[in-house]
Amino acid sequence: MTDQEFIQQFRLPEPVHVTRPAMPDLKDYVEYLTGIWDRKWLTNAGPLHEALEREISSFLGVPHLSLFCNGTIALLVALEVLDIDDGEVITTPFTFPATTHALHWNRIRPVFCDIDPETLNLDPCRIEPLIGPETRAILPVHVYGRPCAVEAIQKIAEKHGLRVIYDAAHAFGVKYNGKPLVSYGDLSVLSFHATKLFSTIEGGALISGSDLQRKRVNFLKNFGIADEETVVGPGINGKMNEFQAAFGLMQLKMVDYEIQNRGAIAALYRDGLKDISGITMLQEAHDTEPNNGYFPILIDAERYGVTRDELFAVLRQCNILARKYFYPLISHASCYASLASAAPSNLMVAERVSRQVLCLPIYGDLEPAVVRHICRVIAECRQSVSRHDDGAPIYRQARV
Amino acid sequence: MTDQEFIQQFRLPEPVHVTRPAMPDLKDYVEYLTGIWDRKWLTNAGPLHEALEREISSFLGVPHLSLFCNGTIALLVALEVLDIDDGEVITTPFTFPATTHALHWNRIRPVFCDIDPETLNLDPCRIEPLIGPETRAILPVHVYGRPCAVEAIQKIAEKHGLRVIYDAAHAFGVKYNGKPLVSYGDLSVLSFHATKLFSTIEGGALISGSDLQRKRVNFLKNFGIADEETVVGPGINGKMNEFQAAFGLMQLKMVDYEIQNRGAIAALYRDGLKDISGITMLQEAHDTEPNNGYFPILIDAERYGVTRDELFAVLRQCNILARKYFYPLISHASCYASLASAAPSNLMVAERVSRQVLCLPIYGDLEPAVVRHICRVIAECRQSVSRHDDGAPIYRQARV
Repeated sequence: MTDQEFIQQFRLPEPVHVTRPAMPDLKDYVEYLTGIWDRKWLTNAGPLHEALEREISSFLGVPHLSLFCNGTIALLVALEVLDIDDGEVITTPFTFPATTHALHWNRIRPVFCDIDPETLNLDPCRIEPLIGPETRAILPVHVYGRPCAVEAIQKIAEKHGLRVIYDAAHAFGVKYNGKPLVSYGDLSVLSFHATKLFSTIEGGALISGSDLQRKRVNFLKNFGIADEETVVGPGINGKMNEFQAAFGLMQLKMVDYEIQNRGAIAALYRDGLKDISGITMLQEAHDTEPNNGYFPILIDAERYGVTRDELFAVLRQCNILARKYFYPLISHASCYASLASAAPSNLMVAERVSRQVLCLPIYGDLEPAVVRHICRVIAECRQSVSRHDDGAPIYRQARV
Repeated sequence: MTDQEFIQQFRLPEPVHVTRPAMPDLKDYVEYLTGIWDRKWLTNAGPLHEALEREISSFLGVPHLSLFCNGTIALLVALEVLDIDDGEVITTPFTFPATTHALHWNRIRPVFCDIDPETLNLDPCRIEPLIGPETRAILPVHVYGRPCAVEAIQKIAEKHGLRVIYDAAHAFGVKYNGKPLVSYGDLSVLSFHATKLFSTIEGGALISGSDLQRKRVNFLKNFGIADEETVVGPGINGKMNEFQAAFGLMQLKMVDYEIQNRGAIAALYRDGLKDISGITMLQEAHDTEPNNGYFPILIDAERYGVTRDELFAVLRQCNILARKYFYPLISHASCYASLASAAPSNLMVAERVSRQVLCLPIYGDLEPAVVRHICRVIAECRQSVSRHDDGAPIYRQARV
């Protein structure tokens, strides 16, 4: 089969994105809008905002939750409320840029720590050697919603008097050892961006450790304003508006169903990919109720015969828009690359994983036939890749 | 008349807020939503976002405009894109906290400069003595949408090699010398919060000086992401979503009408308050097409016989929710009060004005009868205030 024939055979008629938001019923959404129109109360802790805060708290089982306009601003405020505004914080390079940038905005130098090859989360064995006199906190990420080594990290933090802030952007609804994953650490931050399992269009939340702390978070997300005449600190605008909150109230009703459907899709992928040499799926996390938010695979080019970038390009030509979450490592960005801890030799696992990883499409109403089709493309691509005389695969060209 | 009788006579049946958003037709808004539901594209430079950016650019007459989730994040990015990330910036204490907090998030020490007693904006005569080796920029505010002394400020900036960033949160649509006010300075930042003349629920915009700069701003508001594999700087999430953009597209059609209606209300206030001793209104700004966004008055307690706080309390009891924009000065907030420039003796005009100012209700569909009523309350309050034996006005009690 020529490359052209391959693409012709496997190209889907419509692009399949890596994810797609579950849209609530528009009619029901308009009912919420009618209330907003009546009240003319569009933002600043409106009644829908307050209702969503209560409902998410209850759904997740965490008492001290504050909504935000997006997860990034929640991260900024998380550091601010803990008074972490200088020194160093130990974090992972295998993450979305927001994690590291939040440190920048709080005047903190990131110290990159390598990841565990099984969990793809911060490797707890590598944290302690990085702790120095300026270390203030650890900022791990529950990548793909899979739990970090929370007990080990907590032990290290307690031993050295450090704070732990979890970037739990992917971890909505995940339970670990029967507890909400976002209840571990000093603070956790969720993202409700449109690409997330649970969404408020844009949005996020900060889970505080106490009601007092939550109160201060709520001041800080509203410019530090405690009352009409008191500003208690250098706050920011992190407010979620009523239109976002209404969307969230409806999404919340659908999220159990979404998690379940994604679970079925993940099972289909597991079955469809299990016999392809060179394609590795992550082990299911132990003691965890997962949310199935992402479906990452790792491509070992030597065994699979095709590199991750080549497979990515083939899939794209077939209208299958997989994403390289996370490549390149954020430690490669020019603003961080000169840090000693950003040296690739310090981050061998993360470097390799970022070159191998690909997140496949997953969302509640993704059709099983499409999932099976994607698995078949991945299986066939391995067998049918053709090469130029110099051995370079044809697909590499097609990508340019 | 006793105080009780006064309140009984003048209390409005429903609260009149200092402002109220003009709500577009819900049916038309739902049409926009239908498109969003079809596309399932909720944020990240969606088609409505792109359309609104073009339409506001054209409406304001500025070519290089970027939308933001709110004006505060736009301010953070304005400083970042100019590489102002340390040192000092000269700014006004007579502003909403966001102005000063933006400096905090960019690691900059604010240097407070007193205001001009006529314009209530940064006094250009007082700027130069504050310039030192660490000064990087000037961050003035067009308070109430009234132009700063833009020529004088530009001259000082050029002489000393400083940048000028205007906080133009209030200045939507204002023209000065026939030019858009937001085209002055290196950059300007608008707010589209629900309390503003033109609103996108929450929202804001940054007006850049060139297309190249705008491009970088657009990267920075999306985490610094230039393409799928390149992060060009420590960005943030400043994205406006499609629901906000749809609201803005409809508000934009109403904004000329809103400006005109507010102009009529301002004229009513001017007429109704002109003979009350001790109540000062601001002179209309010269060479300016105003937007009538706010209607501030200054209360001279000695001449009026009642303090600003007492009048505020009386109005509140009458369901007239005037606001003390801006009191106290942000230089009083605990996070800034210890700065040398925050000393009240350096900020005599701003200190006095912040104790005297009150913003009266103004919005397009505020009924003329209510405006006349408010004027009457202010006139009558002066004459009928009763006092305790020790001279303290009764209203002061009522406030507690």
